[in-house]
Amino acid sequence: MPIYTPPIEDFKFLLHDVLRIGEITDLKSFEELDEDTVNAIIEAAGEFTSEVLAPLNESGDREGAQLTQQGVTTPRGFVEAYRRFIDGGWASLIARPEHGGQGLPHIFKNIMDEMLGAANLAFAMCPATSPGVYQILLHHGTDEMRDVYVPRIVSGEWATAMSLTEPQCGSALGLIRSRAEPQEDGTYKITGTKMFNSWGDHDMAGNIVHLVLAKLPGAPEGTRGISLFLVPKFLPDGSGEAGARNNFSCGSLERKMGIHASATCVTNFDGATGYLVGKPNQGLPNMFVLMNTMRLATGAMATGIADTAYRHALSYTKERIAGRAASGAKYPDLAGDPIIVHPDVRRMLMTMRAFTEGARQFCLWIGLTLERAALHDDPKTRQECDELVSLLTPVVKAFLSDKSFESIDMALQCYGGHGYIQDNGIEQYLRDERMLRLGEGTSGIQAMDLLHRKVLLDDSKTLDRYFALIRDFAAQMSETNRLNALSQTLMHELARLENLTRELSHALRADGEALGAASFDYLNMLGHLSLAFMWAQAAAAAERELGSGKSRQFYENKLATAEFYFARVLPEMLSLEAKIRAGASTLMRITDDAF
Amino acid sequence: MPIYTPPIEDFKFLLHDVLRIGEITDLKSFEELDEDTVNAIIEAAGEFTSEVLAPLNESGDREGAQLTQQGVTTPRGFVEAYRRFIDGGWASLIARPEHGGQGLPHIFKNIMDEMLGAANLAFAMCPATSPGVYQILLHHGTDEMRDVYVPRIVSGEWATAMSLTEPQCGSALGLIRSRAEPQEDGTYKITGTKMFNSWGDHDMAGNIVHLVLAKLPGAPEGTRGISLFLVPKFLPDGSGEAGARNNFSCGSLERKMGIHASATCVTNFDGATGYLVGKPNQGLPNMFVLMNTMRLATGAMATGIADTAYRHALSYTKERIAGRAASGAKYPDLAGDPIIVHPDVRRMLMTMRAFTEGARQFCLWIGLTLERAALHDDPKTRQECDELVSLLTPVVKAFLSDKSFESIDMALQCYGGHGYIQDNGIEQYLRDERMLRLGEGTSGIQAMDLLHRKVLLDDSKTLDRYFALIRDFAAQMSETNRLNALSQTLMHELARLENLTRELSHALRADGEALGAASFDYLNMLGHLSLAFMWAQAAAAAERELGSGKSRQFYENKLATAEFYFARVLPEMLSLEAKIRAGASTLMRITDDAF
Repeated sequence: MPIYTPPIEDFKFLLHDVLRIGEITDLKSFEELDEDTVNAIIEAAGEFTSEVLAPLNESGDREGAQLTQQGVTTPRGFVEAYRRFIDGGWASLIARPEHGGQGLPHIFKNIMDEMLGAANLAFAMCPATSPGVYQILLHHGTDEMRDVYVPRIVSGEWATAMSLTEPQCGSALGLIRSRAEPQEDGTYKITGTKMFNSWGDHDMAGNIVHLVLAKLPGAPEGTRGISLFLVPKFLPDGSGEAGARNNFSCGSLERKMGIHASATCVTNFDGATGYLVGKPNQGLPNMFVLMNTMRLATGAMATGIADTAYRHALSYTKERIAGRAASGAKYPDLAGDPIIVHPDVRRMLMTMRAFTEGARQFCLWIGLTLERAALHDDPKTRQECDELVSLLTPVVKAFLSDKSFESIDMALQCYGGHGYIQDNGIEQYLRDERMLRLGEGTSGIQAMDLLHRKVLLDDSKTLDRYFALIRDFAAQMSETNRLNALSQTLMHELARLENLTRELSHALRADGEALGAASFDYLNMLGHLSLAFMWAQAAAAAERELGSGKSRQFYENKLATAEFYFARVLPEMLSLEAKIRAGASTLMRITDDAF
Repeated sequence: MPIYTPPIEDFKFLLHDVLRIGEITDLKSFEELDEDTVNAIIEAAGEFTSEVLAPLNESGDREGAQLTQQGVTTPRGFVEAYRRFIDGGWASLIARPEHGGQGLPHIFKNIMDEMLGAANLAFAMCPATSPGVYQILLHHGTDEMRDVYVPRIVSGEWATAMSLTEPQCGSALGLIRSRAEPQEDGTYKITGTKMFNSWGDHDMAGNIVHLVLAKLPGAPEGTRGISLFLVPKFLPDGSGEAGARNNFSCGSLERKMGIHASATCVTNFDGATGYLVGKPNQGLPNMFVLMNTMRLATGAMATGIADTAYRHALSYTKERIAGRAASGAKYPDLAGDPIIVHPDVRRMLMTMRAFTEGARQFCLWIGLTLERAALHDDPKTRQECDELVSLLTPVVKAFLSDKSFESIDMALQCYGGHGYIQDNGIEQYLRDERMLRLGEGTSGIQAMDLLHRKVLLDDSKTLDRYFALIRDFAAQMSETNRLNALSQTLMHELARLENLTRELSHALRADGEALGAASFDYLNMLGHLSLAFMWAQAAAAAERELGSGKSRQFYENKLATAEFYFARVLPEMLSLEAKIRAGASTLMRITDDAF
């Protein structure tokens, strides 16, 4: 089987039948996009990722990035693949045309992120930072940054990297120690050690532009004293090309569980020349622009890698012969039945299928909302869409990456003992994906962000608008019996989470421990509800299209998968609610010392 | 911190306060065991595993087993460690004195299996097969096997291996192709290729005795035509010592996700000399004796590796400084609070703690039941205990290995990004443990064994006896308010599973698909109920001992952990029940071809 089979048909269904992008009238960015163009882009992206990147996935894992005297070198084929990545314009899909981009709607980034994650997650991490850096430079950069850096970052000729973490601090960025000394020429000398510096050095791009968090002399303590600096590997010369080598280098590479082809650097900044981005001491909010694009990209990449693992497992379960079906031989001509006949194998396959297709839809739906947040004519719509994306970003990041891991774990389980063997190509996905649940803030951090900042500090206003969207959709989808059953369950689970939120929000606001004890399960409830909302939309679209003469089987499968999600996955809500209602006391009873 | 800190205090609590082995009067094997002897053995086992085996765990992972022209070699230190393992008598704890064993009760094997799994899972897999091989040879071997092989296997001087799987079949052993040709001298020539042959070759023992499944000429099709053969690497000479090399060898080693120090061989038998064990064509039931000891050992090893991962995470969360507690600084003298102050980190720590301590207790409780099954005076008690162990073996195997993986995954998550770094020593546990969920029958296979064979075909008779045990215990534990609350919840969840079983058993018996669709979630319900039963016993013992003047904090922690398990883990029952009640239809709707 091919290593990666892009889900072209599903993307088409989601874009044309569910999101109906051809009928979008409130966003100019969709006006000139006809169906054929959209499909051609998706197919070309699928071709590129499956033919160029997927074949390097396993060899990249075996060879890994290497630290040499000349800096970090990538596994065989990566330099050429990156060249083809930028030559094909894949780095610049959604950047504006005036910066050298193609000006496509954000959903094409979702699609590309998913495909990159599916084909080669280690590679995917390299270009992942650039769209966020582009945003930051566009809004907070100097003219020189916009003239020199932006077009080269948009094209991909120059890569980017994020330099936040230090050995003594990860999520608690207030504790960073890297310093920035102002120079007479307006630049800064950056000194300090950064770690977990993904793709902090490599041989694929002509330059690597780091965004570095550091403290100015006399800066306030904590997170209000952090500034953001642009620190390129090579300082641009007079013509804007990569010139003199800057004073920082990769001191060592981490040995990691997975994504071996991606260099995770410890980077030593030794008085490196840096340029302030934005205002002094206000680096953190700007860095969060980048962080949030990374969090959304994480969800899409997690979806992709789960999808490819699922397809591997599906293929294996159709081929692997074992005992007969419980109801008697289904393939009497074979020595045994393929294991796909067994309900417990089906349980795993359907769970994976329901997750990946639902997650894909969720990412696209968020992408469309993001497009409205950026480009809608109406400022109120822009703001509401922005708030909605902001609410759901931690769900996309944590829920999708956690469930992706569970999904890949099931894919491995479908192989039995063969899943444990590296040559079968499935265990790497589990090792690689594991990183997505840690980077850009762990799932626990996301959960606090969701419940504390996005729900409670907002007085549930944005959440209530999201709930209203779900309720309105559920209310109008009851045309047929099949949809009616889904509609009722969706209403029921929506009410469960609404009531829980209403009942607990006062107590949670007053008690930080209660809030922290509820946050993770709460995020998971909102995640399940969100995918149920997606599956309700998919089911409604499939039911509508069933009579359209197009692939009947495809739409029947969509309905069947929606029904599976509601019947066999959504009941997770019951346990999550019970755990939340159990409160914090049993978590906190044992003292730190006595633990 | 030390790599492995054996849970000596908890073992003492479980043996002396919960199982009260000093007061056991119906089993002679406990008569001569005083508390000091028991404690000395546990402490010595802890010393051996933590000082000799744990230090080889990480280097074993990096170096891995190697296939050389002389056969498989183990990583540095393994040969010497194995020598110390057998010199210390650790291989022979529970074998009978007349075979060179120490005649200790089975619970000491549980303890040793847990410690081996915790200290070095790859190493632990090597001696894991021998107790089962010992049982088989004792009951079905020839006199020569008992005289020559048994004492050397008991001492550990000779190692053993299981040769079942072939490339075309794993769980469907009816499809094996290996052949056994009878020879005039009563031996057999064994020919065929076996895979997943754990520790199939190595340099640690003087001989390696394989138990091989193969088919005699003209044997019936399927599982009723499989015979069991003893095939030693070296044929014993006249004095019973390892002599001429037998005709089989390791053709290649699998590259695996983990347990790199354990050689997973593809073994080619080229007319190797083998000896029939038991009757022709009846090899499978005998092999299942071995399989079942391995399944129980798997649960204990899974507990151990989860325990050591938990202790790593605990230590990390006490040291790692990040933001302040929600209620304000708890450690104002530090730059930030250690992350153990955060409820979401507590959620993970408590889940791990509740799992590992509960699982440990479950394994010991099963070990005691196994002791009664083997040695009780009353045949009815022997049979009922045997049936109870048989019922719960798939739960021990699947539930404990699956939850161990989840627990280790949480331990890794506690480290944030640092968990992904190999040098921090946590990700190896996740990679290593993953194997336990696959070998000796996947969790899906265990679930079918439980629900189909052990529950339904038994008309729930043994299950009902288990439920009665739980009910009786719950009924008499309501002395205090704290225990009363636990007792009521235990009764409630017991009734949930009893009612579900009663309501569904008729339908499940009639419909293989419905049975298969329910099996996995059913096994998990019984697993959760079993750990709740354990925690109820632990809580009752702790409540009783609270006034005894011994470590008050220890008993308070036990009660707190029991309450956590009931409040924040046991609610999983809700979702599992709902999923089971949703039935099979949504699993099976998409046809194999349309998938």
